[in-house]
Amino acid sequence: MISRMSSLFLRTLRDDPADAEVPSHKLLVRAGYVRRVAPGIYSWLPLGKMVLDNVARVVKEEMDRFGAQEVHFPALLPREFYEATGRWTEYGENLFRLKDRRGNDYLLGPTHEEMFTLLVKGEYSSYKDLPVNLYQIQTKYRDEARPRAGILRGREFVMKDSYSFDLDDEGLKRSYELHREAYIRIFTRLGMDYRIVSAMSGAMGGSASEEFLAPAPTGEDTFVQCGNCDYAANTEAFEGRPGTEIDASAEPAAQVYETPDTPTIESLVTLFRGFEGFEQTTAANTLKNVVVKLRHPGKKDPEILVVGVPGDREVDLKRLEAAVSPAEIELFEAEDFAKHPALVRGYIGPQALAEAGYTYQVDPLVVPGSSWITGANEPGRHAAHVVYGRDFTPSGTIGAAEVRAGDPCPRCGSPVSIDRGIEIGHIFQLGRKYADAFGLDVLGPDGKPVRVTMGSYGIGVSRAVAAVAEQRHDALGLVWPREIAPADVHLVATGKDDAVYEAAARIAADLDAAGLRVLFDDRRSASPGVKFKDAELIGVPTIVVVGKGLADGVIEVKDRATGERRDVPLAELVATLAG
Amino acid sequence: MISRMSSLFLRTLRDDPADAEVPSHKLLVRAGYVRRVAPGIYSWLPLGKMVLDNVARVVKEEMDRFGAQEVHFPALLPREFYEATGRWTEYGENLFRLKDRRGNDYLLGPTHEEMFTLLVKGEYSSYKDLPVNLYQIQTKYRDEARPRAGILRGREFVMKDSYSFDLDDEGLKRSYELHREAYIRIFTRLGMDYRIVSAMSGAMGGSASEEFLAPAPTGEDTFVQCGNCDYAANTEAFEGRPGTEIDASAEPAAQVYETPDTPTIESLVTLFRGFEGFEQTTAANTLKNVVVKLRHPGKKDPEILVVGVPGDREVDLKRLEAAVSPAEIELFEAEDFAKHPALVRGYIGPQALAEAGYTYQVDPLVVPGSSWITGANEPGRHAAHVVYGRDFTPSGTIGAAEVRAGDPCPRCGSPVSIDRGIEIGHIFQLGRKYADAFGLDVLGPDGKPVRVTMGSYGIGVSRAVAAVAEQRHDALGLVWPREIAPADVHLVATGKDDAVYEAAARIAADLDAAGLRVLFDDRRSASPGVKFKDAELIGVPTIVVVGKGLADGVIEVKDRATGERRDVPLAELVATLAG
Repeated sequence: MISRMSSLFLRTLRDDPADAEVPSHKLLVRAGYVRRVAPGIYSWLPLGKMVLDNVARVVKEEMDRFGAQEVHFPALLPREFYEATGRWTEYGENLFRLKDRRGNDYLLGPTHEEMFTLLVKGEYSSYKDLPVNLYQIQTKYRDEARPRAGILRGREFVMKDSYSFDLDDEGLKRSYELHREAYIRIFTRLGMDYRIVSAMSGAMGGSASEEFLAPAPTGEDTFVQCGNCDYAANTEAFEGRPGTEIDASAEPAAQVYETPDTPTIESLVTLFRGFEGFEQTTAANTLKNVVVKLRHPGKKDPEILVVGVPGDREVDLKRLEAAVSPAEIELFEAEDFAKHPALVRGYIGPQALAEAGYTYQVDPLVVPGSSWITGANEPGRHAAHVVYGRDFTPSGTIGAAEVRAGDPCPRCGSPVSIDRGIEIGHIFQLGRKYADAFGLDVLGPDGKPVRVTMGSYGIGVSRAVAAVAEQRHDALGLVWPREIAPADVHLVATGKDDAVYEAAARIAADLDAAGLRVLFDDRRSASPGVKFKDAELIGVPTIVVVGKGLADGVIEVKDRATGERRDVPLAELVATLAG
Repeated sequence: MISRMSSLFLRTLRDDPADAEVPSHKLLVRAGYVRRVAPGIYSWLPLGKMVLDNVARVVKEEMDRFGAQEVHFPALLPREFYEATGRWTEYGENLFRLKDRRGNDYLLGPTHEEMFTLLVKGEYSSYKDLPVNLYQIQTKYRDEARPRAGILRGREFVMKDSYSFDLDDEGLKRSYELHREAYIRIFTRLGMDYRIVSAMSGAMGGSASEEFLAPAPTGEDTFVQCGNCDYAANTEAFEGRPGTEIDASAEPAAQVYETPDTPTIESLVTLFRGFEGFEQTTAANTLKNVVVKLRHPGKKDPEILVVGVPGDREVDLKRLEAAVSPAEIELFEAEDFAKHPALVRGYIGPQALAEAGYTYQVDPLVVPGSSWITGANEPGRHAAHVVYGRDFTPSGTIGAAEVRAGDPCPRCGSPVSIDRGIEIGHIFQLGRKYADAFGLDVLGPDGKPVRVTMGSYGIGVSRAVAAVAEQRHDALGLVWPREIAPADVHLVATGKDDAVYEAAARIAADLDAAGLRVLFDDRRSASPGVKFKDAELIGVPTIVVVGKGLADGVIEVKDRATGERRDVPLAELVATLAG
């Protein structure tokens, strides 16, 4: 295929678009791949469409390779199916809702668990039919509160979503593993740097889940990585490493201090530093106790949970929520405190919580034998020398504190690093949530119904285009891997000499005949400088320049990624590039 | 590619779905190609997705062949662009409208003229940039009042829409011709029987327009076709043939008759048959005059138009509207009659209309010199012997009467036939309507702005799947042309003998290696009868049966379309089928 710049629907821009914050957004707009239509909604221009199609092709090939079968669901879906699972409401403002001319409620599908579950229920009835893996590559809709970063997080986007259907947990694990291997092949072919990290299930419910993250400073996700072993996890899913028990036998008895007007850790530390023996007190010596309400699915009343973390750390509500999933967290408000006088706001200590009937859990950073300054459960009073195991005993540990670089790896204890990444894939052992909602059973070998267990797996196809751009660009422009580049070769003819353009046209035809996709800059009006700049910006992996060297029978070949140039004899050009 | 029926996500149905009226709907559901999600909204199962993708591929190849460039717009579009052209309102209830979380208005794109116009305006600025042809293959949305016939007319559907941008009418004609030729190649490759018929522009405004119709008894469009010359037109666009003038010199003078209580043609004819000399009166001897309001774009007050047609024909409002386009027609209601006492409801005659200041036009079936029984413009009175050219003179002719088989061809006068067809494509010289709305100019060679002229071209991609099914099926099932069939060969292994299944598996692998797509019925549990029935229903063009003949080294090859069977030696099978 030959695309000629003289007629290609493409205008590159010299300046970054005003609304662009991240490199992929700036470059995809400047290089003429996408154009903005509305917040989070983009059009794909010819070069962009080629890259998007290439990504989709790679995804399809690898899904087909392991026997997944492609289907295609509508994006416009009736409310009833999402009402059945509660997601019509749960999705909140993220769901685009609309009515048809008869006043019936519809939504624009954000993800299709319901539809796939119902499809399989409609077609299959026997254990012999399973396992089956179904997927689609489809346009999806989410009304993001802050659509940002161009197509990294859009409101209309292309996604591959797939679902596995199995008889039992062993089957689900196999389907999950097939997806995992396919994802590894896909992201490798897409030329991405990626990490597979443990993930929590979030609102989805379920047991085993991993994310594929593309490390990038612009990523919205943070992940923890061990420098020693291969442990990696989304920060939300970081388990924490239980610390070694401390010998507290020498610790003085707990003692209560008058601490008026110290509702914050900072004011508490300042006050304590004035007490004898507490001059070196830091926030890390204090135990912060935070109250939340756990909303368990299907239960009317929330559970009250008090969580203890070292006072120098914030509670990471996302991490906490991941830890209590499928329960959801609600804040404990002033009116809640009013109903629970035993929980003294700003002065909560763990000493009497169990007796008062509250569940108390601590972050793994709070280890047995540790001694703390903490609330005395009375207004204006704190206690010191409050020892874990002597003065209080939590009912368990829960990953709740903000994670920091240097925290110990839960697997090997080495310090972990924290990095940002873009979520490009997610694989998830969903379990029976949707099968339960719709009664998806098949008849087992014994004639009795077996409830099907499902996996759910996603790849952001349009997001992958942007994620590759985030990872593969330089100051001059984009640097596509060949598999998804809009062309294999960017052929530039320079100067005014007809013979150059004729020779270049012959080269283009030869490359095309050899099966290479050629982006041919045949523009007579543009200067060599403009053409070279465009070539760097557009980012095709190999740039071939036909110009002055032609008289000597040589063509300049430049590698876009390394910048390396070499002269290749004209006669060897096609063989060199096709090889 | 080999798809194995033992694991293919496919269940064929023995019975027609209850809601299916047309063959394509029945068969696409029964053969497991599509499933209904909501009225006019369908899911595509694996076999259906293959056919849909094949159609899209053919369309893409032929669009690319003439240099059209593929882009991809969002389906979710902000109101402002459609407000600018008035279509936010004009589309009425056919438009799916919704609000985002901030309360901003959006729509689901029914067609993308606005977006393409704005895109070209944003990127291009010089006459040197033109012409350009852009297209997309995309999911579109229309909230049809009566979604019917499965995917023949859906509310979510896949369409190829393209737009040409030219400097002048000559350029537009060339772009139009390029599309026309591409469409001919596309529908030929899709194996369709089709007609290219003249079409009116409808609500779009413009000058030259043709439709590609697939003749089928289930089609929603009717078209006129000459049995002698190559004239063909959508019935709405039928021009009519001006008849030969009649010599009315012997006709008696017009005479008024008392005709109380004869507001209908039927009652009028019955009454006149009692009058002397009128015993043979039929409805065809009466002149029916119908009043409508023409709503011209941009004009506040409607124009009043009286149209005369022979009394044995209804006024075809769609045809009339096509004739007056871009004006739209509104009915003349009782309150309108009240304001216009000169127009006596039920007793309107053409004799005094011009004097009263009303525009009067007649269908071409009303020829100069013809004599009529018609209203006398007084309640309870009609006139006879009212002669065109003597007693009234219309201001012009207008195609308004219902068209009937046998009406004269406007080109050669031979009788026309009328048939039903499915609109599968539409090409349209749109002109400057959208360029005007958005100020799409480029600088001409003289530095002065030139207003761009556009063409708009559509192919119903998902509809084409159903239209092919309408045309290509028999009592047993679907009969796909090879280009879009889900496989080239349906390979059926029969019986219980392992050797048969092993031989069939080898044949499948050999056919696959030869580049053929194989649907391999390797099911051990299904009977030969079930397998043969499924093969006929699914409609792959060649059915290969591996069974008893294997012992003698022969394989049965059946042509799905003709039913012709022959035995082919095993050794020659691949060469025979691949050839």
